[in-house]
Amino acid sequence: MYDASSTSLITDPRHPLIQRLRSLQTPKGRAESGCYLIEGIRHVARAIEADAPIEHLFVAPSTLASPLGQKLARRLRQSGTPCAKLAPDIYRRLSLAATPQGIGAVIRQDWLPLGAARPSRGDCWLAAEDVQSPGNLGTMIRTSEAAGAAGIILIGRTADPYDPTALRATMGALFTQKLVRTTAREFAAWSTSCRLTLIGSSPSAARDYREVRYRRPVVVLVGGERHGLSSELKSACSSLVRIPIARSGLDSLNVAVAAGILVYEAFYQHRQPSDDRAPLTSPAGRSLTGPNPRNQASPGGV
Amino acid sequence: MYDASSTSLITDPRHPLIQRLRSLQTPKGRAESGCYLIEGIRHVARAIEADAPIEHLFVAPSTLASPLGQKLARRLRQSGTPCAKLAPDIYRRLSLAATPQGIGAVIRQDWLPLGAARPSRGDCWLAAEDVQSPGNLGTMIRTSEAAGAAGIILIGRTADPYDPTALRATMGALFTQKLVRTTAREFAAWSTSCRLTLIGSSPSAARDYREVRYRRPVVVLVGGERHGLSSELKSACSSLVRIPIARSGLDSLNVAVAAGILVYEAFYQHRQPSDDRAPLTSPAGRSLTGPNPRNQASPGGV
Repeated sequence: MYDASSTSLITDPRHPLIQRLRSLQTPKGRAESGCYLIEGIRHVARAIEADAPIEHLFVAPSTLASPLGQKLARRLRQSGTPCAKLAPDIYRRLSLAATPQGIGAVIRQDWLPLGAARPSRGDCWLAAEDVQSPGNLGTMIRTSEAAGAAGIILIGRTADPYDPTALRATMGALFTQKLVRTTAREFAAWSTSCRLTLIGSSPSAARDYREVRYRRPVVVLVGGERHGLSSELKSACSSLVRIPIARSGLDSLNVAVAAGILVYEAFYQHRQPSDDRAPLTSPAGRSLTGPNPRNQASPGGV
Repeated sequence: MYDASSTSLITDPRHPLIQRLRSLQTPKGRAESGCYLIEGIRHVARAIEADAPIEHLFVAPSTLASPLGQKLARRLRQSGTPCAKLAPDIYRRLSLAATPQGIGAVIRQDWLPLGAARPSRGDCWLAAEDVQSPGNLGTMIRTSEAAGAAGIILIGRTADPYDPTALRATMGALFTQKLVRTTAREFAAWSTSCRLTLIGSSPSAARDYREVRYRRPVVVLVGGERHGLSSELKSACSSLVRIPIARSGLDSLNVAVAAGILVYEAFYQHRQPSDDRAPLTSPAGRSLTGPNPRNQASPGGV
């Protein structure tokens, strides 16, 4: 068992730390404190690896059976991170995990101001307008990290990436992805001033998502579950693309799936760049990028 | 308001029909009855369109404000489908929707025996082994329909597609997708006997998912959230492919995102078929399918 003998066990659910941890499970508590809560060995390990600003560790010593978990807790305490010990029932009532692992942390939120986000030449970013499901958003953050994108730009009423459901879906990718929150108007102005390629996803777009060039720096932009992209952001795009739907009964894909398909197209075009001036062609000479990809994927937006 | 004057309003929560509807929200109730429950106008409309075997309609007349919803209810009653009227509070307590629309239906489950699933020449199928999240499974069914795949094969301990969370995520795609449930062993034997291309996804696979041919009939196979594909199914695959992960902190994508990326690769290769005997090449002559795609994507499995 994890040895935390030097601090006393919290057994009172009304203890101020427990109140604080509970409040971080609510949007209000996170907004007021600028912090968030993570749980589980994997997330704590990734937070340490990524040098995330951990304010507080908390463990339930009698629940934390994993040697790795115990080692992480020791390491954090030795480096001076405050560590609280919780009685198992207090921890269990607090935990949102199906199988509580007995370890969690309070971490400071880390937002990048839009003005400080200066996409460099080889960058890909993912942007989401009004994506309301925290699970979808968390999955998108995981995909963005996996595809080597630099970060995620949350536009409008997009969910809170520090929501527990979103966090769980990120699988720890949040600690290394840059996070920006902004409005549609600011985002449109920023994308113009940065002269980047802005590829927006829309079921009604004329062009197939594989027909355009994701010339870097590129931002892949998806709209919310209900209404897709706003017309304001549609008109800010360098290209609007659609993921073809083979059957008429459906009009769209799940937004996290759509984002995954698009950022992997961006990834793949970057990994195997072909001549920027010529469209990709198949052996039979069919154009895979349409008649004039340069017009569609030119940098600059608007 | 929907006129359902010919039947009396159910106001008692202990009414047998209410008990039945409740039981269909549980795995046991669905297994015993062979039916499932759908809710909402979109789902009912798609069920009618797809000619799904609707056993029972139920409406909360005072909640069903939508003219489309009222029209659907009238149409079903006129065609002889039994229709029950529920008091609004009974409906509300039953409903799992955030905003109950006042209409739902009981539908017979529709499973295809594995032996009856004979993939035809142009077919693509999706298969899932031990995918445990109903939300992920429902999303995969939606993607499968969108990409024009014929159906989905549920292997091992894969979640119930008729679970309310799965159903919601399908967006109605379940009514048109073929559904098969089987074991890993039976699936492996079936895929061999059908001489189809079986492309399995594995983070440790040597080949990139874009390097192989998804020669039809093809089955795209993904493993569960925790352990991926079993070794039994890995060895049944014609090719194992990985979706590249650009950053070392993550080892995989969300399974529904991975399935989406793979079935759209299958879709795209089918839509723009190039010479089967030559690898796809870029203008500069780079191979996009690796040195010998024929060895990797030959039909036949095992």
